[in-house]
Amino acid sequence: MTLACAVAAMALATTPPTVPAGPPEAARILAEALRGGSYPVLAELTDGVGARLAGSAGAEEAVRWSADWFRRHAIPVRLEPVMVTRWTRGEERAEVVGGTGGRPQPLAVTALGMSAPTPPGGVVAEVIEVRSLDELADLGPRVKGRIVLFQHDMKVAADYGRFSGLRIRGPAAAARLGAVAALVRSLSTATLRTPHTGTTSFPPGVAAIPAGALAVEDAELVHRLLGRGPVRVRLILGGSLADPPLVPSANVVAEIRGDGKPDEVVVIGAHLDAWDLGTGAIDDGAGVAMVLETMRIVAAMPRPPRRTLRAVLFMNEENGAEGAVAYHEGALSAGTLHVAAMEADAGAGRATGVEVTAGPGAKEIVGAMAAPLASLGASRVGGNGGGVDISPLAWAGVPLLSLAQDTSRYFDWHHGAADTLDKVDPAELAQATAAFAWMAWALADSPATLPRLAVPEREPWWKRPSR
Amino acid sequence: MTLACAVAAMALATTPPTVPAGPPEAARILAEALRGGSYPVLAELTDGVGARLAGSAGAEEAVRWSADWFRRHAIPVRLEPVMVTRWTRGEERAEVVGGTGGRPQPLAVTALGMSAPTPPGGVVAEVIEVRSLDELADLGPRVKGRIVLFQHDMKVAADYGRFSGLRIRGPAAAARLGAVAALVRSLSTATLRTPHTGTTSFPPGVAAIPAGALAVEDAELVHRLLGRGPVRVRLILGGSLADPPLVPSANVVAEIRGDGKPDEVVVIGAHLDAWDLGTGAIDDGAGVAMVLETMRIVAAMPRPPRRTLRAVLFMNEENGAEGAVAYHEGALSAGTLHVAAMEADAGAGRATGVEVTAGPGAKEIVGAMAAPLASLGASRVGGNGGGVDISPLAWAGVPLLSLAQDTSRYFDWHHGAADTLDKVDPAELAQATAAFAWMAWALADSPATLPRLAVPEREPWWKRPSR
Repeated sequence: MTLACAVAAMALATTPPTVPAGPPEAARILAEALRGGSYPVLAELTDGVGARLAGSAGAEEAVRWSADWFRRHAIPVRLEPVMVTRWTRGEERAEVVGGTGGRPQPLAVTALGMSAPTPPGGVVAEVIEVRSLDELADLGPRVKGRIVLFQHDMKVAADYGRFSGLRIRGPAAAARLGAVAALVRSLSTATLRTPHTGTTSFPPGVAAIPAGALAVEDAELVHRLLGRGPVRVRLILGGSLADPPLVPSANVVAEIRGDGKPDEVVVIGAHLDAWDLGTGAIDDGAGVAMVLETMRIVAAMPRPPRRTLRAVLFMNEENGAEGAVAYHEGALSAGTLHVAAMEADAGAGRATGVEVTAGPGAKEIVGAMAAPLASLGASRVGGNGGGVDISPLAWAGVPLLSLAQDTSRYFDWHHGAADTLDKVDPAELAQATAAFAWMAWALADSPATLPRLAVPEREPWWKRPSR
Repeated sequence: MTLACAVAAMALATTPPTVPAGPPEAARILAEALRGGSYPVLAELTDGVGARLAGSAGAEEAVRWSADWFRRHAIPVRLEPVMVTRWTRGEERAEVVGGTGGRPQPLAVTALGMSAPTPPGGVVAEVIEVRSLDELADLGPRVKGRIVLFQHDMKVAADYGRFSGLRIRGPAAAARLGAVAALVRSLSTATLRTPHTGTTSFPPGVAAIPAGALAVEDAELVHRLLGRGPVRVRLILGGSLADPPLVPSANVVAEIRGDGKPDEVVVIGAHLDAWDLGTGAIDDGAGVAMVLETMRIVAAMPRPPRRTLRAVLFMNEENGAEGAVAYHEGALSAGTLHVAAMEADAGAGRATGVEVTAGPGAKEIVGAMAAPLASLGASRVGGNGGGVDISPLAWAGVPLLSLAQDTSRYFDWHHGAADTLDKVDPAELAQATAAFAWMAWALADSPATLPRLAVPEREPWWKRPSR
């Protein structure tokens, strides 16, 4: 059955022709979510609040708006204080110096989060191009005084994992070798001369350098020009850390108290902050809308679930992940028993299944829970659940879940100016919300809980100096 | 036979397996063009010269570069003086004033050519939205003091003709009714928050107002916000006409003198100027490359064609078309006998046929000339030949031609920052160049000439006050 059919069937019939398998609550939850309440919520966030990089006025407005949203729906809510990195974008401009006739060729550039500002007037230096951190290391002293350009070959969404290390760790590696700046070819699957930002990391002891993303077209132009001879680029990036760099903000935490086992907590989360170039519709307004709509639906059920369902809207997933760490540490000191955590941070595309990272046998249990999602084409279970914001809970053994979604166009828009509401198909968002809401209910209400995760032996990522 | 096969066959065999129909020169001309010399020429223009809006240093560099190119290829060349409009872009920024929490929502905007600058600090006004010039006229006095937003529904390339009038004539119509500024939804078939510029026209007696194009996303945002209540926009556009507004520039005119009928002239043209946001690869660097490569190939033939083949690289097709008018008037006063004119200004996509606008019987003659293009899949003949730069010649009865090309992605990039070299497929450009070069030879060398066009009864467009 297509989604359109499912919506029509559920809207028209009191007993739909295909009743989802599983508990009686499934039909109601899926039908409610498929009515499409998620999209207007998302529109309030993107069109009303807009850009909301952590530490900005927009992010604080998002905190107020979402806390108000819970209050309007009579769902108890609190703000969990978090100190977040405040980095602000400034002027950004780049050009190839002295092309034919001595005129510059402009380059489309945007600063990466945590970039240092260039000095007044910018930096001008020769570009040296690499395709990997190993290749950079091999260049050794030749990097000194240069602008390092990280090239890659990203074509499809699945390539993001292969190449995102160039953006995250490349600029610091270049800084260690004495580069004056770093440029990264945008990590994207479509381009109209549109640079894509994202965070980069300068570990303690490595002084930040100016670091930006070039549009794919401009990275290719510089590559072609390097084929003819040396290329000098003037780079002006005004982005900088605030002074002081940490400012107060908050996670927004709302709860529907369980009836029976209220001390067992299921967390559903998304991140409230978003990169500043767009309005964060797919990253991660869609996830926020899925979480809010899930809470609205569950709060309106005839009875609460057995366990406590807790929504967490994390602050600053994008440029520091302090909200994730603060939530984890707060929950640890409160002695909270999390039985599962599920994050929505993969856009607004159609759900195709459920991913779970937990102890042995978890996939079978999740498979049984997800049976009602067969009517949405979303009952397939995979073993890759999680998300940045809930990942610290792995060190407490908490089973981590997320939806598998269609991300084929996600990186066309991700971290760029084009991450705006029009990219979201209301029917796809409603379908994914239905899958998310049902799984939230099932995790909170099923007799069975998931086998806990073996605590990772590696050091928690937020305690690593190279983070 | 696919293009790849054709290239391979012609490169490998001295007598290709499928010899094109028609005169013996056809095989040589097609094979030469399919070797792909057009792409490196285009790269010299886009990567070496870059942006080249008429009146700019880039445009003057393009004149020098192309004249030098002809000299390097020993083809006689002259510069034909043209006074062109010089309009320069300035700061450009827009925002919705006072969204939630009083913070502005930024809008992606770019000025249209001929836009007046906003006063310092910009204009702030309420937006009024229309979908046609008729709807605007109906609003009458309600337009005064407003910013008019022209919405439309462009989806595919064929829609450009339907909606481009909103950009060209909309701002002047708004100005007449007292609007303080005009915004036009970008005329494009793809968007990543990318505004597309283009010229707009303020006839004598209508004082120019600030006029810009919004990215499609931003036009849709404003539309959604108008559904909730009044929307005020702050618009800052620095673009302005130079003082004086006309500066000297040139058409670049090169000739291969005919052997037999040297006084009969076939013009092949493209425009050398390009919008400034990108580097004019598809509009119209591709056309320039097709013309130059055609001239190179014809100049290297064992004998010249019967008639004179004249290449004209027109200046300022985009923002005034003064080069087109200057060429026409110069040719008129010289008494030049043009037997045909063919323009390349439809991008770098694969040729699918030949278009001709001429007297009765012309399509049959062109069909016979185009027979060798069957091997390229480009021998279909249509009745819609022409181009802005050669259009004045219609008033001298000159048959006008152009290629039919695949323009399905042309308006993804047209007049935007993404009009860059990477959008061009070298094999498609080579195929289109082969079709263009062969038609140029055929027009210049065939015993038959095309029946002349009936001179249009309407006033020449460049003499209309509303131009």
